[in-house]
Amino acid sequence: MTTAKRDTYTPETLLTVAVQVFIERGYDGTSMEHLSKAAGISKSSIYHHVAGKEELLRRAVSRALDELFGILDEEHAGVGSAAERLEYVVRRMVEVLMAELPYVTLLLRVRGNTATERWALERRREFDHRVAGLLKAAAAEGDVRADVEVRLATRLVFGMINSIVEWYRPDGPDGRGGAGEREVVDAVARLVFGGLRKAS
Amino acid sequence: MTTAKRDTYTPETLLTVAVQVFIERGYDGTSMEHLSKAAGISKSSIYHHVAGKEELLRRAVSRALDELFGILDEEHAGVGSAAERLEYVVRRMVEVLMAELPYVTLLLRVRGNTATERWALERRREFDHRVAGLLKAAAAEGDVRADVEVRLATRLVFGMINSIVEWYRPDGPDGRGGAGEREVVDAVARLVFGGLRKAS
Repeated sequence: MTTAKRDTYTPETLLTVAVQVFIERGYDGTSMEHLSKAAGISKSSIYHHVAGKEELLRRAVSRALDELFGILDEEHAGVGSAAERLEYVVRRMVEVLMAELPYVTLLLRVRGNTATERWALERRREFDHRVAGLLKAAAAEGDVRADVEVRLATRLVFGMINSIVEWYRPDGPDGRGGAGEREVVDAVARLVFGGLRKAS
Repeated sequence: MTTAKRDTYTPETLLTVAVQVFIERGYDGTSMEHLSKAAGISKSSIYHHVAGKEELLRRAVSRALDELFGILDEEHAGVGSAAERLEYVVRRMVEVLMAELPYVTLLLRVRGNTATERWALERRREFDHRVAGLLKAAAAEGDVRADVEVRLATRLVFGMINSIVEWYRPDGPDGRGGAGEREVVDAVARLVFGGLRKAS
């Protein structure tokens, strides 16, 4: 049974709880009942804040998407060679992923069963496309290898970056005790651009 | 209702059906009823082949794990410098992932709620550890950059490789029509060892 507590949530703090439940149970597997239990407030209290679980999902993935698209508008994403801009964007993507870990995790798990999920997938594709454009420009400028097709390279680089959500925990053994934020950002930038091989 | 058909399954063909259902519904979300419907045979017919869904999961992940560990026993995984052996193993990992796509996909999604899942996770960690050992040896031999910590590099490289299950489809637009097997293997090897930057 839900032990109702006084509803002191803001839309923001309610979102934090909902995102955790979505990640644990999957969005499809989460009911308003689950959200109510996790938040410790009644369903009607939740409806006081939001229209339903889809609105919570939309707010959560919007937060991740806004941060990611925001990178492309930052000053350093627009100055220098395409390769320099690409490196800046890659580093910032890793930073955003770690700073907004639950929101990006949720975004990456979206499957496309509802209108909000399909919209999120579409926006993700658009972001991927923008980054692929930078990669293409860097290849045209001769700074990026031409023997790996741009779309394939983009997928593999995104695969490496996105996989960080599987193991990075800011407060866990891989956070403070293991790899710190700066170390992860540098490692990704070094591997993505220089690979494992020692520069000779 | 299940329209029972004559049970012409072998353990092997039944496994193919079960793995598909596990991937679509998640292992936890799959009941014997779901398996019975997907296979088009009764639950008792399934029990004729296997003790239950956990045995099907064990067989499926064993197949993926056997193929992965098998790589480490192949001749080329044991000759040459550590960097050469590592490159061979990375290429073969990508090949195995594509050849055994559903089995590796399932292995990567295992979460650890049952004894079989925990065993699979343990074996995965063991495999990762073996590959990390090669990376460490290559670093000690001076062929791999020393400015990215071995465990972090291993995670990022596995992240890139494992992400292939998210988009590679042997018969889909990204298979025959898009990136072929050979192209993907070459792309991963080039990016993992040389990175995006054009060798100057």
